[in-house]
Amino acid sequence: MVYPYAKMAVVGITLRQFTQIQARLARKRTCARAPASTDAAPANHAQGKVRRVILGIDPSVRATGYGVILTEKTGPRALAYGTISLRGRDHTRADRLAHIARTLRDVVERHRPEVCVIEGLFYGPNPKTAQAIGEARGAALAIVAEAGIEIFEIAPRRVKLAIVGHGGAHKLAVAKMVQRMLNLSATPEPDAADALALALAFAQEQKGFGPSTLKRI
Amino acid sequence: MVYPYAKMAVVGITLRQFTQIQARLARKRTCARAPASTDAAPANHAQGKVRRVILGIDPSVRATGYGVILTEKTGPRALAYGTISLRGRDHTRADRLAHIARTLRDVVERHRPEVCVIEGLFYGPNPKTAQAIGEARGAALAIVAEAGIEIFEIAPRRVKLAIVGHGGAHKLAVAKMVQRMLNLSATPEPDAADALALALAFAQEQKGFGPSTLKRI
Repeated sequence: MVYPYAKMAVVGITLRQFTQIQARLARKRTCARAPASTDAAPANHAQGKVRRVILGIDPSVRATGYGVILTEKTGPRALAYGTISLRGRDHTRADRLAHIARTLRDVVERHRPEVCVIEGLFYGPNPKTAQAIGEARGAALAIVAEAGIEIFEIAPRRVKLAIVGHGGAHKLAVAKMVQRMLNLSATPEPDAADALALALAFAQEQKGFGPSTLKRI
Repeated sequence: MVYPYAKMAVVGITLRQFTQIQARLARKRTCARAPASTDAAPANHAQGKVRRVILGIDPSVRATGYGVILTEKTGPRALAYGTISLRGRDHTRADRLAHIARTLRDVVERHRPEVCVIEGLFYGPNPKTAQAIGEARGAALAIVAEAGIEIFEIAPRRVKLAIVGHGGAHKLAVAKMVQRMLNLSATPEPDAADALALALAFAQEQKGFGPSTLKRI
């Protein structure tokens, strides 16, 4: 195996981390049907099921990322991803929330995901920010739940750990790994990459790698 | 005029406050077409317009209050009001948000309000609560904004001041005044009463009583 040092430098990871990532990727390729974990993961979704459509959402009022992946025996594949953002200053907060709702409804109707994953709550010190993130989450969750899709949370650290191999990974490292895991021709935008990472991390948890940290909401 | 001391005791206001409220009600009855205020209130809604449908929303994940009023020359009238709440413990937070979205969409389709009023943000010390309230707000705002309805905020203190005459009024005092102003046969539930109070306070601001504190969101 050739270690692409130039790439590693761009992504900002060490050789040890790179080797760990390689090992994870290799494991994933060979263990597509790992035994189902016995923990708190959802019982009503067949855990060993390989082919499934997963929607990841990273909500924020200004720029909500979304990503839809299809997991197959050959590995995960991106069906759609993007950033929901109304450009221009003259849009109200309510306009932006309506745009999130409208776009996610379209995505759900087009790709019919079976399950949705959203970032677990991170309670920062600022209630104003917490409320703003809450608004974006509320708009997104209401639309997805209205479509009858089960929703799970994964903590941000857990997602980074699952994708890059360490919980404190930089956004760019996550985006680069997402690009690699899904064979994308370009690195996705940060918010879309985070959403795809959520979906990928969910797929891994479902396959039984490591203890599940999935929480249904 | 007979002072209903027994009622005052129930509502918990003093004689001075009661007299102020009476004066406010009398003014409202005689000045249905007061001159429009010249401040930050919305220009694209005819401010002197008497007949209009206003939707008030008091959002929370557990129990969201809504109230629709119609303002007429003869005074305001309640078209619909209630509390959106999913009973039972086995509902997820996402289920509750979907229920808020579904119910408000029905209310909007049935009554076609021109304008919506929501409680201004109150940033308490707890980011967890702030985020939960944010989620309910987000679900509600997205649905109302999707219907193309303009949304305004009024600060909670301002609503109490407009309805009861002092900013620190108790919930029950607000409910009792709302019942009285709308000639309701029973006192509405607290969350529904708060939503109706928001709509009534908006109607008053629009008629030009006192400085406007409306903020479009």
